[in-house]
Amino acid sequence: MPDYWSTLDVDLHLPVDPGTGRRNGLEHALRDAIRDGRLHAGTRLPSTRTLAMELGLSRGTVSAAYDQLIAEGHLVAKQGSGTHVAHTAATIELSTTSDHGPTAPARMRHNLRAGSPDLSRFPTAAWLRASRCALDRAPSEAFGYGDPCGRIELRSALAEYLGRTRGVLATPEQIIITTGVQQALSLVGGVLSQSKMPVMAMEDPYIPLFRDAVRISGPAVVPLPVDEDGAQVDLLTTNDFDGVGAAVVTPSHQFPIGSTLSPSRRQALAAWARAGHLVIEDDYDGEFRYDRQPVGAVQGIAPENVIYIGSASKTLGPGLRLAWMVLPSRWVGAITEAKQLADRHSETLGQLTLAEMITSHAYDRHVRSSRLRYRKRRDLLAERLKPRGGRPLTGFALGGIAAGLHALIRLEPAGLSENEVLTRAAEYSLAINGLSGMWLSPNQNEHRPQAIVIGFGSPTDGAYPAALDALVRTLSWR
Amino acid sequence: MPDYWSTLDVDLHLPVDPGTGRRNGLEHALRDAIRDGRLHAGTRLPSTRTLAMELGLSRGTVSAAYDQLIAEGHLVAKQGSGTHVAHTAATIELSTTSDHGPTAPARMRHNLRAGSPDLSRFPTAAWLRASRCALDRAPSEAFGYGDPCGRIELRSALAEYLGRTRGVLATPEQIIITTGVQQALSLVGGVLSQSKMPVMAMEDPYIPLFRDAVRISGPAVVPLPVDEDGAQVDLLTTNDFDGVGAAVVTPSHQFPIGSTLSPSRRQALAAWARAGHLVIEDDYDGEFRYDRQPVGAVQGIAPENVIYIGSASKTLGPGLRLAWMVLPSRWVGAITEAKQLADRHSETLGQLTLAEMITSHAYDRHVRSSRLRYRKRRDLLAERLKPRGGRPLTGFALGGIAAGLHALIRLEPAGLSENEVLTRAAEYSLAINGLSGMWLSPNQNEHRPQAIVIGFGSPTDGAYPAALDALVRTLSWR
Repeated sequence: MPDYWSTLDVDLHLPVDPGTGRRNGLEHALRDAIRDGRLHAGTRLPSTRTLAMELGLSRGTVSAAYDQLIAEGHLVAKQGSGTHVAHTAATIELSTTSDHGPTAPARMRHNLRAGSPDLSRFPTAAWLRASRCALDRAPSEAFGYGDPCGRIELRSALAEYLGRTRGVLATPEQIIITTGVQQALSLVGGVLSQSKMPVMAMEDPYIPLFRDAVRISGPAVVPLPVDEDGAQVDLLTTNDFDGVGAAVVTPSHQFPIGSTLSPSRRQALAAWARAGHLVIEDDYDGEFRYDRQPVGAVQGIAPENVIYIGSASKTLGPGLRLAWMVLPSRWVGAITEAKQLADRHSETLGQLTLAEMITSHAYDRHVRSSRLRYRKRRDLLAERLKPRGGRPLTGFALGGIAAGLHALIRLEPAGLSENEVLTRAAEYSLAINGLSGMWLSPNQNEHRPQAIVIGFGSPTDGAYPAALDALVRTLSWR
Repeated sequence: MPDYWSTLDVDLHLPVDPGTGRRNGLEHALRDAIRDGRLHAGTRLPSTRTLAMELGLSRGTVSAAYDQLIAEGHLVAKQGSGTHVAHTAATIELSTTSDHGPTAPARMRHNLRAGSPDLSRFPTAAWLRASRCALDRAPSEAFGYGDPCGRIELRSALAEYLGRTRGVLATPEQIIITTGVQQALSLVGGVLSQSKMPVMAMEDPYIPLFRDAVRISGPAVVPLPVDEDGAQVDLLTTNDFDGVGAAVVTPSHQFPIGSTLSPSRRQALAAWARAGHLVIEDDYDGEFRYDRQPVGAVQGIAPENVIYIGSASKTLGPGLRLAWMVLPSRWVGAITEAKQLADRHSETLGQLTLAEMITSHAYDRHVRSSRLRYRKRRDLLAERLKPRGGRPLTGFALGGIAAGLHALIRLEPAGLSENEVLTRAAEYSLAINGLSGMWLSPNQNEHRPQAIVIGFGSPTDGAYPAALDALVRTLSWR
């Protein structure tokens, strides 16, 4: 039997009907595959020599069949690059592709939407270097099925990093790697739905997709109001929250309001947790704190009753889908099982690369230089929106700028509505988020603040000043 | 305000109580962080210059605090590499890590378990080259949140590849990237559970974890028996399968039995699908076919009624968590939504790298050389197990070897039980799977074949002959 599989050529699945004669059979099989769309326009075919060996035909037979299909216009022979499927009317339709997924945002010139860091600053060179390092060192088993909790290299690196930078108390055994904060919340939701208190409180406003993901995992979701001191955690002990087993909070920088949980509320939240509840701390941008005393994770003051969640989405980019949870020991078993049932375990190569980035301190360097960049942007935003006696921008309240990559601009003092501002922003080709899309609970005819959310992390350094110009023009209403 | 964030140094979260005096406050904060375990043994501290700038203290104050803690044994100064947290009794316990996740298999010398390719052959160099190429070309937005369906680059590459190699009819718009066959089944399960026929049939034996993952996504699961012609699809039209909306099958190489769905059953399955049911085709090892006429995907004969699922787990490695589904158009919307709720979208960098591997034909080359390697192993397995007049190995039936990376050895002709063989294998330090762990339905006291599953893809080339020796010794019972 010839070792035809070793030829370095493209692979082709071609069922040739032996009843129709050799050359005819091959011609039919190729023609059908092209007409049906199995062979797409532009596809390179194997060389006549390779295909002849694979099918046990003579090379002349294959050449003759190729020539016939070239004559028919189904194939094209290009000097030096072999034989390809032609772009005919029948195939063009099938090979049409689109750049725009169903969720691609409308293209605006300026982007101040929240939720993303400056993606043009992704440290490609450092990432590739770390990736090569990690893969060179990785044992073969790293490419196989692994621990549902994630790679021990990354969990060890994170235990050290989170203790040092966020005051989180963790051993590697308490850490589970997930594909995002969203998946982490779903996993907790699935386990909570089996408990005696299958209801989860979530700060409101927050991220509606997270609410939906938790609901589909089992628990009911009840909204927990937020004010300028963060989540109103005192409400958790009232009758309205009977049956609530867990509360999702963003203590260091509420999304999207931007407030920080006050010290007394941190203590109240920790006390509620110790009374037999679970606090889920979404520390999505804890690395970016600009002015004040550092605010450590709530997990550090109640490690037995808090699940801490962090991610690389704001430090590197959400496309990596890399996040982590630090669990009280008694939760590790159930969440591990839920993770295994969800997707077996998270992808390995990204985990090994991030571990290498952290242990080599390349991650620290990237975070620190990012923090500098975003603080400058934050300062520029505040400067541009400063009230100037009698000038158009008087009357806006800028908030939530002590940390993170986004700020909130309240519109009431100026007497404007969110809709008016969004319409005007579109005229300046400026993409921003209104606050109204982030409420978890339906509008119960109560008064809700009119506000817009500004993501100053999203644009490139070069595009940021023009985006701010567009924002100032948008707000210069009268 | 000094630009202290720009210093290229490690990050440290250290809440210093201003009430206790500068140097005392810093000493306390450091001591507490080390005692609590927030600062792990071995952690490098920032330089005195950096920390002084960050905390607004003099460098002398920080030096004095470091010196005090060095004197106490909490810190260690190493010439040329800065100041580190010492390995004291209190910290050693916290920093203990383990190589073994909760699911790590017992260490045996020889590995013939099924489910994995030869991981030592992961094409690290080609992968890194493709990764660099893909990242250099990737637009910034690739690092951000993306299309729940996956990257268009990979979906386009797969549409061409799957048509060419597996006879799958697909446009990029019908393809959704998932983290594995398991997640693909869960997503279909979630959508199916909302339908009028929320029951899924699954070949039995198959993979119990897949059954559990589907059940947790909603539908009930009923077992579909399998014989030497593949799934007994004629049963699907009987009363026993009333209410079954979908059937999961492995037509080209049943896992774990190894049989191929017969041509008449392929037609019957396609007819059942066209009558308003859904066929889910798990084509987990379709690339590895050794002897006969190629067997194309069933999707190619009933593209409007079949969901095709493939993955890179057997061609590259399961650690990548890269798989894909080709959907009938009417299923695209619901599965896209389910994917978004599960984990937003799959990780991007691996998708871009695999797309580059496919379009550069590096993937084809790897698959072809792997196919050659595994065919040789398959041949060697058959050779070693050949009955030789009166010799100990007479009486075993080797099956399922026309394709894939595993084979089935039936033990009945030799009068052996699975348990006997597994016990004996352990004595030879040989890891193999028994068939009994792969049944989806509980044993209803009926006769089930005694058999073992041999994964000849798992060991390295160098380790394979010794593993076969151990297998032959294990089976040389009398």
